[in-house]
Order: sequence, then C-alpha cells, then structure tokens
Amino acid sequence: MPIDAEDFLVSWNRAVHARNTEGLAALLADEVSMGAPPYWNRIEGKAVVAQLLGIIVETITDFTYRRQWVNGAELALEFEGHVGDCALQGIDLITLGEDGLITRLDVMIRPENALVLLRERVGPRMVEFFETAGD
Amino acid sequence: MPIDAEDFLVSWNRAVHARNTEGLAALLADEVSMGAPPYWNRIEGKAVVAQLLGIIVETITDFTYRRQWVNGAELALEFEGHVGDCALQGIDLITLGEDGLITRLDVMIRPENALVLLRERVGPRMVEFFETAGD
Repeated sequence: MPIDAEDFLVSWNRAVHARNTEGLAALLADEVSMGAPPYWNRIEGKAVVAQLLGIIVETITDFTYRRQWVNGAELALEFEGHVGDCALQGIDLITLGEDGLITRLDVMIRPENALVLLRERVGPRMVEFFETAGD
Repeated sequence: MPIDAEDFLVSWNRAVHARNTEGLAALLADEVSMGAPPYWNRIEGKAVVAQLLGIIVETITDFTYRRQWVNGAELALEFEGHVGDCALQGIDLITLGEDGLITRLDVMIRPENALVLLRERVGPRMVEFFETAGD
C-alpha cells in the first residue's frame, strides 16, 4: 500500500467515524466529483460533496468499514450499517489525486429499500443546505 | 495478483461477455451465496445464482468492466452498462474459495432508476425459472 493511501485511510476513517464534515472536507480536492447512490448526474465541488457526505454518515447508523482494496491511488472500501430499520451494505470507490485528496468518489449501496430510505432522509437536508447557502 | 485470481478473472470475463450461464455456473461453488442489488436476503446455491447472473448479464447492455481490485481471494470489479435507457455503474464483490470458485458474491449498482428497472426486468424471468424448475 503506498504511503499516501495509508495516510489517507487513517484520516478518512477518523473523519467518517467522528461524523466530522470539516474533517471530510479537508480530504476533498476543490474539484471533487461524486456519484451518489440515487442519481446518475454527478455532484461537483468540495463544499457540496462535503455537506452530502456529512449528512450521509450522520444518517447511516452502525457505520462500519469491512473489506478494503487499494490499487495505487484507486481505493474500494466496503461498509455496512443501517438506515432506520434497514440493514445496508455499500462501497466507496475513491480516486486520490497527486496531493492525496479525493478527486472522484462513487458510492453504491444495496438493498433497494435502504437506498430509497437514505435518499428520503438525506434529500430534504440537502435542500435545506442549498436554501441556507442561498441566503 | 495470485495466479488463482488471475485465472479466475480470465474465465469470469469470458463467461460474462459471452452471456454464458453454464460458463458462469462453472465458476460458482455449490454453496455460493449472492447478495443481489434489490434485496437484503441472500440468494443461495449454484443453480439459482447462475440463473440470476445469466439473466442479469443478458439484461445489462454495453456491459464493460472498468477498475478491478484483487486482494488475495477477495476481488472488487467495477462495471458500467445500461438497462434500457438508464446508464448504470456497479460493483461485484467476490470471494473465492480454496478451489478458486466463488463462494460469496455481492452486487451493488447505482443509480436508483437503473436498480429499479433491472429488478423489474429480471424479476419476472426469475419467477418463470422457478415455475419451470417446479414442473
């Protein structure tokens, strides 16, 4: 495992488990692009992606990383948890840039009921974020 | 990459791209367990999992593997494709047994519209399979 990926994983795990939006933001490149579980169109930019990630890790309870794969700057991190009463399994596919920050992140989860419930719980909080940001 | 994973990947890619249900079945352990994208409860046993995989690879068009990660007997294979007009991204998380056959397979896809459409198209064909198998 290259040292950059190892360092990244320590900081990433700390931020995720602390549900620390600022800590997550510090690991994102300014031009980060995220493929969220419900949508095909990508979410762009550090501020929005950090907010979305922060809300997701607040919404998923018992969040635990399982298997992880590292191939140079490309990472795959399996996780498990719950949203409400729905158990879920998911994966983070992460690309690190040369400075060790995330340039691309794709998140997939199963099963469908957990995906739908996550969207229903996260969506209104993102709307609230955009409305506040627009003030 | 251990030689067993490399051999496995050659056979797996060949069977997936040929949409060859028998070729897929030949790579599954008898007691294989699959976590399908829509459901939490696992699908058990070589015959049923092979049938489901065969229908999935017939239903997803433009099926193309992208990034892949190998960590001993644990593999993560990213893919892209379409179901109907919906573009999709997915991941196969695969565990190989000591004989090089798949003992565990989890599949996750995004976005939600592709997941729903895939379930709607695959489900009736699995029902048909079970009805025929019961004859």
